[in-house]
Amino acid sequence: MKLIDGKEASNAIRDKIKEEVAGLIDAGKRAPHLAAILVGEDPASQTYVANKEKSCQKVGITSTLYRLPAETTQDELLGVIDFINQDDEIDGVIVQLPLPDHIDKDTVIQAIHPSKDVDGFHPENVGKMVSGLPTYLPATPFGILMLLEHYKIETSGKSCAVLGRSNIVGTPMSLLLSRKADPGNCTVTTVHSRSQNIEQITAEADIVVAAFGQPHYLKADMVKDGAVVIDVGIHRVPSDKTKSGFRLIGDVDFDEVSKKASWITPVPGGVGPMTITGLLMNTMKAYRKEVYS
Amino acid sequence: MKLIDGKEASNAIRDKIKEEVAGLIDAGKRAPHLAAILVGEDPASQTYVANKEKSCQKVGITSTLYRLPAETTQDELLGVIDFINQDDEIDGVIVQLPLPDHIDKDTVIQAIHPSKDVDGFHPENVGKMVSGLPTYLPATPFGILMLLEHYKIETSGKSCAVLGRSNIVGTPMSLLLSRKADPGNCTVTTVHSRSQNIEQITAEADIVVAAFGQPHYLKADMVKDGAVVIDVGIHRVPSDKTKSGFRLIGDVDFDEVSKKASWITPVPGGVGPMTITGLLMNTMKAYRKEVYS
Repeated sequence: MKLIDGKEASNAIRDKIKEEVAGLIDAGKRAPHLAAILVGEDPASQTYVANKEKSCQKVGITSTLYRLPAETTQDELLGVIDFINQDDEIDGVIVQLPLPDHIDKDTVIQAIHPSKDVDGFHPENVGKMVSGLPTYLPATPFGILMLLEHYKIETSGKSCAVLGRSNIVGTPMSLLLSRKADPGNCTVTTVHSRSQNIEQITAEADIVVAAFGQPHYLKADMVKDGAVVIDVGIHRVPSDKTKSGFRLIGDVDFDEVSKKASWITPVPGGVGPMTITGLLMNTMKAYRKEVYS
Repeated sequence: MKLIDGKEASNAIRDKIKEEVAGLIDAGKRAPHLAAILVGEDPASQTYVANKEKSCQKVGITSTLYRLPAETTQDELLGVIDFINQDDEIDGVIVQLPLPDHIDKDTVIQAIHPSKDVDGFHPENVGKMVSGLPTYLPATPFGILMLLEHYKIETSGKSCAVLGRSNIVGTPMSLLLSRKADPGNCTVTTVHSRSQNIEQITAEADIVVAAFGQPHYLKADMVKDGAVVIDVGIHRVPSDKTKSGFRLIGDVDFDEVSKKASWITPVPGGVGPMTITGLLMNTMKAYRKEVYS
């Protein structure tokens, strides 16, 4: 079994970004700039946004956080987005999800100018992904593609089971792995809550991407010997072995599955770090005007 | 074996459209209006466009054909599209593909205002499909969904092999059948030129959608007893049994496969008629401003 080390891959990619940004500054240009909007005070969201900000700072990307109170109206939020859309010195903007119930997520996502939508959630960018046009890929699937690339894991002609069909992970992952590209060219089966014989599907797959959101869902008897296993899940569970009293686990029963897998991502330290790296890469693409000129 | 009769289903749906349009006219409103643009004189394209026009006329939808010479420049074509985009009395516009080599298809598709893109090819509409938002579905997969609905063929929890990953058929078909909807909720495997063990995948599937573009590709030993078989292919082959000297066949070896299938579409008269019906339905949606208000 070989470990797909998301931290290692992520550091290598972020080092390159850091170098590129330093070069820009040396050349007298402005730094790339990511804006983040956080509505309300959800603790998990605060942690995620803080991590994104810190990651930006480490590579030299300017980050600005717009903190809005939980009672912000949808119109007020749209006003902030409009303001950012028009600011030529902001390259990308992300709105941390989930939003309060009184705000319609889809309206907000569609208000972001596609050229600044570095989360890749705007329908125009999603559609470009489907059609194979240049776009911002959603950060988690993008991160997984970069992991496969970094570790030179062959995907062409392989069978792949993607567990989950969410808009931000499962569905784009299925699309990206099945399209004519490298990584890609997999024969993808998309598995979801209504699927039958799931164990049989995963047990026949060369590559399994687990994004079901269920702790330790994927057991050893559900994978074949030599499978590549990518774990997108992250769950906080009680533990008497850590000081904090909890530990992080994924959708994959790592201890058992790792005995059969040829390659496997750990949790934490697998897909997680790559997600923010995907966001940083998209911010650089926006700065370079690679997608929208 | 039961026949999935695309002509019958199509007529039933078109009758409803016709009734709705007649009601509009009776109420003193203008008829829905579809514009088609044909560049050059490709014989197959001329036939397709003529069929679309005729189908519009039969249900009372106004159709206008813009015939442009093969040497039309891209800018000239974009000018015509802009003119149509701004005409409030045209609800939908389609550009017949393929376009001459000197014109970039993606630029042209993206120039159509998403609200008038009744082919459902604009990235914004494709992205909305992926995200499950109201949109214009691409006509062929839309037509297939309507067929499954018309014949009340259960899809939820079924395994489905989609042969092909084109932007206009295979990929949207895979997406639509796997999403949380009815028809939908299938466990979809997308099969393509790089796939291995294709025979095994199709032989295990409850539903097979054949969109490979290869005459009689799907043989009887590749499907299981009781499978639902949807044939998207249409090929003109020589025949000594017809007056014209040719006949139309699909991607499925109908004579043999129909002995095992529970439901199967013939060619011609299966998916074909439903594709134009999908276009008519999208034109009505555009008229009613169901997708973009």
